[in-house]
Amino acid sequence: MTKLKSIIEKIFVKSQRSTELVAITDQIREIVQKSGVKNGIVNIFTQHVTTALTINEDDPKLEEDIARFMVYAVPEDDSYAHHHFFRKDGRMAVNAYSHIRASLLGGNLTIPLQGGDMVLGGRQNVYLVELDGPQLRGLAVQIMGE
Amino acid sequence: MTKLKSIIEKIFVKSQRSTELVAITDQIREIVQKSGVKNGIVNIFTQHVTTALTINEDDPKLEEDIARFMVYAVPEDDSYAHHHFFRKDGRMAVNAYSHIRASLLGGNLTIPLQGGDMVLGGRQNVYLVELDGPQLRGLAVQIMGE
Amino acid sequence: MTKLKSIIEKIFVKSQRSTELVAITDQIREIVQKSGVKNGIVNIFTQHVTTALTINEDDPKLEEDIARFMVYAVPEDDSYAHHHFFRKDGRMAVNAYSHIRASLLGGNLTIPLQGGDMVLGGRQNVYLVELDGPQLRGLAVQIMGE
Repeated sequence: MTKLKSIIEKIFVKSQRSTELVAITDQIREIVQKSGVKNGIVNIFTQHVTTALTINEDDPKLEEDIARFMVYAVPEDDSYAHHHFFRKDGRMAVNAYSHIRASLLGGNLTIPLQGGDMVLGGRQNVYLVELDGPQLRGLAVQIMGE
Repeated sequence: MTKLKSIIEKIFVKSQRSTELVAITDQIREIVQKSGVKNGIVNIFTQHVTTALTINEDDPKLEEDIARFMVYAVPEDDSYAHHHFFRKDGRMAVNAYSHIRASLLGGNLTIPLQGGDMVLGGRQNVYLVELDGPQLRGLAVQIMGE
Repeated sequence: MTKLKSIIEKIFVKSQRSTELVAITDQIREIVQKSGVKNGIVNIFTQHVTTALTINEDDPKLEEDIARFMVYAVPEDDSYAHHHFFRKDGRMAVNAYSHIRASLLGGNLTIPLQGGDMVLGGRQNVYLVELDGPQLRGLAVQIMGE
């Protein structure tokens, strides 16, 4: 390796439902290819506190199962301490469960790059996990390498 | 990018409670600024097996909710196999639930750096999650880039 | 830092049980040493959708506790939508819970390297988490640094 690059591009994803997996593999791959970086990492980082990133199999039914599990595991009741008036937002926060689900799944993935492509296994798909949608979401996609 | 640096600094955090989120964003930002690295990554890595790292919104009530959820999700009963005498410690291990909570949340974050700062969203705060406190905890903060 | 390297090696792990933690710290350390890289990162990435990676304490009893907790937390019932016939596999998918457990734990770790070794704490062990075994599993181990 001689000349190292670090490029950050922002991508936007529009979710349609309150809790949903949205595939972003193709958008990431496009940024990787455009960057010209052959070897290094792609570091994906959500800039929101009620979304997550995950890798799983490309099956719409499984996407539903994962979303449904998160709803089941972290109940939507109203006893959370976060459910109070936020002056900065001019309204009640009612989404503590969205925040907790986000921390459980995590919002950061660092995928190795080799020969200009991610070293994904045959069934691996990269997903943004919407946990408080529908919303327009922004992700930082960083390519670092040569 | 021409000259690449990798700097590792250790930071210490003193937790006050058994399960608690402690904000470390300012400590990380200080190390980033001192490093002089403009573009690259900050890779944060806890060196303990009963702590985690997470990113979430800066609300003390939400910090409580996340801590409380972890206590609820992984019960503190005494049927864990880990609860036996450890010769190396000269005492019983009684904190299997702390270890399990740590694995669920994860102990590693890789945040992109651009123009000398982390690309955090407006509501993103970096937290050490204490899961077996109070204790003094050490984290490796690595800055890698140019 | 002057000359940067990015090396990716694939390691293989044979699991023995359906849900199990398999220690891979020694295999990772060997690749780090062989690479000659002194400062940088080791980025470990599973190429499967029913495995995960985690760091925890080297105690066989705790390994069991973590595996057992995942089985308890994500129930193995048959109401998952993923449980349908897959033409590409010529059979029913029956492992939605394995996929969900994988997303909860995460399949990626980025560990700092300093002086030719990982900056692991004294009790930290790196594990592949098998969630749909027994199987032969492949992991990408990337060393990036100088």
